Amino acid sequence: MALAAVGTALAAQAQAPALPAPESVTLDKLGYMTTFPPEGAQRVDLSNSFKYPQMRWALQHLRELQPTHNIRRGSAAPSPLPADPKPLGSVVFDDDKGQPITVDQWLTRTYTDALVVMHKGRVVYERYDNQMKPHTPHLLFSVTKSFTGLMAAQLAHEGKIDPNALVTKYVPELADSAWGDMKVREVMDMTGAVRFREVYTDPTTEIFGYSWSSGMLPRPPGYQGPTNVYDFLKTLKKEGEHGAGFVYRTVHSEVLGWIVSRATGKHWAELMSDNVWQKLGMEEDAHVMVDSVGTPLQGAGLNATARDLARFGEMLRLGGSYNGQKIFDKAVIDDTAKGGDREKFKMGGMAFRPGYSYRNQWWVLHNADGAWEAAGIHGQFIHVNPAAEMVVIKLSSHPVAGAGFTHPLTFKAWAALAQAVRR
Amino acid sequence: MALAAVGTALAAQAQAPALPAPESVTLDKLGYMTTFPPEGAQRVDLSNSFKYPQMRWALQHLRELQPTHNIRRGSAAPSPLPADPKPLGSVVFDDDKGQPITVDQWLTRTYTDALVVMHKGRVVYERYDNQMKPHTPHLLFSVTKSFTGLMAAQLAHEGKIDPNALVTKYVPELADSAWGDMKVREVMDMTGAVRFREVYTDPTTEIFGYSWSSGMLPRPPGYQGPTNVYDFLKTLKKEGEHGAGFVYRTVHSEVLGWIVSRATGKHWAELMSDNVWQKLGMEEDAHVMVDSVGTPLQGAGLNATARDLARFGEMLRLGGSYNGQKIFDKAVIDDTAKGGDREKFKMGGMAFRPGYSYRNQWWVLHNADGAWEAAGIHGQFIHVNPAAEMVVIKLSSHPVAGAGFTHPLTFKAWAALAQAVRR
Repeated sequence: MALAAVGTALAAQAQAPALPAPESVTLDKLGYMTTFPPEGAQRVDLSNSFKYPQMRWALQHLRELQPTHNIRRGSAAPSPLPADPKPLGSVVFDDDKGQPITVDQWLTRTYTDALVVMHKGRVVYERYDNQMKPHTPHLLFSVTKSFTGLMAAQLAHEGKIDPNALVTKYVPELADSAWGDMKVREVMDMTGAVRFREVYTDPTTEIFGYSWSSGMLPRPPGYQGPTNVYDFLKTLKKEGEHGAGFVYRTVHSEVLGWIVSRATGKHWAELMSDNVWQKLGMEEDAHVMVDSVGTPLQGAGLNATARDLARFGEMLRLGGSYNGQKIFDKAVIDDTAKGGDREKFKMGGMAFRPGYSYRNQWWVLHNADGAWEAAGIHGQFIHVNPAAEMVVIKLSSHPVAGAGFTHPLTFKAWAALAQAVRR
Repeated sequence: MALAAVGTALAAQAQAPALPAPESVTLDKLGYMTTFPPEGAQRVDLSNSFKYPQMRWALQHLRELQPTHNIRRGSAAPSPLPADPKPLGSVVFDDDKGQPITVDQWLTRTYTDALVVMHKGRVVYERYDNQMKPHTPHLLFSVTKSFTGLMAAQLAHEGKIDPNALVTKYVPELADSAWGDMKVREVMDMTGAVRFREVYTDPTTEIFGYSWSSGMLPRPPGYQGPTNVYDFLKTLKKEGEHGAGFVYRTVHSEVLGWIVSRATGKHWAELMSDNVWQKLGMEEDAHVMVDSVGTPLQGAGLNATARDLARFGEMLRLGGSYNGQKIFDKAVIDDTAKGGDREKFKMGGMAFRPGYSYRNQWWVLHNADGAWEAAGIHGQFIHVNPAAEMVVIKLSSHPVAGAGFTHPLTFKAWAALAQAVRR
């Protein structure tokens, strides 16, 4: 029943809404937040920041709307990101309807804010639109999960987290919740069964509890529910059988981040700074949205630049080391990239991701190139293609949240780029 | 009457409360926000962030509590900040009661988080306490005003703001407020007469309207007042005669920032990044708290590191240029440092600042060394002493907000430091 509900929600998301023409919803045209103060329709605030097209502004300006925890890059000079530009924008490929389209047209059609393509460690194509700049941090939504997942996998590799232990070994507060009898591995791979419905038009579904408790959406008048994410997690109940199948749930990532903090005694943002951002030699600080008591949104709240994500992706492609530093053990990267259980994945209702699996909070394509990726709603991607020696970062503000709507086209674009860089 | 009210409020602040022993309110001892999640008394959130001792944490973590606008440092390597350490911590001087005290004891006694002393362009003493680090941004409160004031003075020098024009030339929305018949210069030097009482125990005084509209304090249930700072400013009324005397009012700085944004078409934080932070070669990004529609708190919301403020102070000492860049014209620096009308200053009720004046939102000491300074509640300072070729940055989290309580001691410390560096 849970799986059916997921399928329904995803199918609803995949239905084509009336999309605004991309050129009609550029920030240059919309003029949000450009006067002092912004008046009327020019305002983006908490009441409309996740509405469209206001979201086009919000995804590049989250920290102006929400409290955030900084992820410091450190004091060292940034690691080099050499460029070897190729005219990939004019590469033509057949879209999902069989019609020719160029890479640049694909970017425009999918409301892209930034694209960085790396090949053999060099930036071969880099493009920004919609007022985004190389130094602009962009909200990554569920790409955040993949950072949390790799952190947890590394800790498991080091013996600091036991994937076979119960979640309650680390977070006893969850004893009476869906996670009470769930194993850590079932959280890491999202095979734990928890009732969490995401129907964006139905405020009785649990996604609203998540959004209100985290502060992502303003609370309705008289709201009496949880006022932070961890208190909200305690309210969620089991629905189905743990381990039976893949059930994509943002709340698993929040629990996983909680486990990571308990195992290390450190805040997620400090781990990200110490173990990832500083070691990779990032160009800019990143940041993560926090709730009213400082809990990072470990499943949805990370903000970073496309170039820094390119460094991260390149580190993944190279097996966990970069800039003379080991970020993750190669065994952790290999375990993630080889993927999870494809049969269990089929039960997740994501038919638009045929043949995929999900492992350590990463999507694994199981294609001939061995590709794997992190993905977030509205078009956020870290795509790693080991065979093509390619990494693609795509940050977008697409009007449709769910990946189902754009994925058939995205799939074609990944293939076209992999072919183009190989030439 | 307004001036009397100010005097009363300041006198109340200057009364010695029962101060906690400094060693009893260190963050190491208090343990705020160190567990996941922080429970009960360990929590610092919007309900207690400006209470004591929770404030000790909040002043180093403001962006984890509030929305902020980043002030980017740019991509260049930081400008050098050479060190030439001197044992200034053990320098002994007589405190305001005539008792001997060392510099380090002074720092502890005034709940100091960071101190940087520059002499002839070199860092001669640098100390951090209370978990603060060289890269930690600290809330500067009214030191913020001094940035806004210099920006405005520079624009006036360039002819982009007319100090003799009415405020309404730039901000017609203020026509029906206290600023309706006020000149820009009266805003810059705080001689405009506006009813704005700061009695922290009386929620009918206007400081509460400022705190609620800005979001600095959580709004009471059923709050129907302004939800952003500019809307709040429109509600304030004239009380007294413009230009008659100095009346210290945070709201003047907010109006001045509004004028600056109107004159330049740019957000305060972008001006700070483009014209100040990037040119000075700062080590870290800074940030400013914003209200619900992105308005920066131009009188109270800046956060920066002590080392970056040292660069700023050194630029002031050198007459407006630093790191091979002109930040302000020398005429602007000279006009500010030479001060304003000392007779008018006396009317402001700040007897603890004898002989001072206020010019372009800076405090001018009119002492033999030609010293001038920016100051914020709870012990924030940029102190420039041209004759001693010294700049002092002091960032603190003192339990008493008003400067009156600590100023007699601060004054002695400035003199002791100036004497010590000259040796």
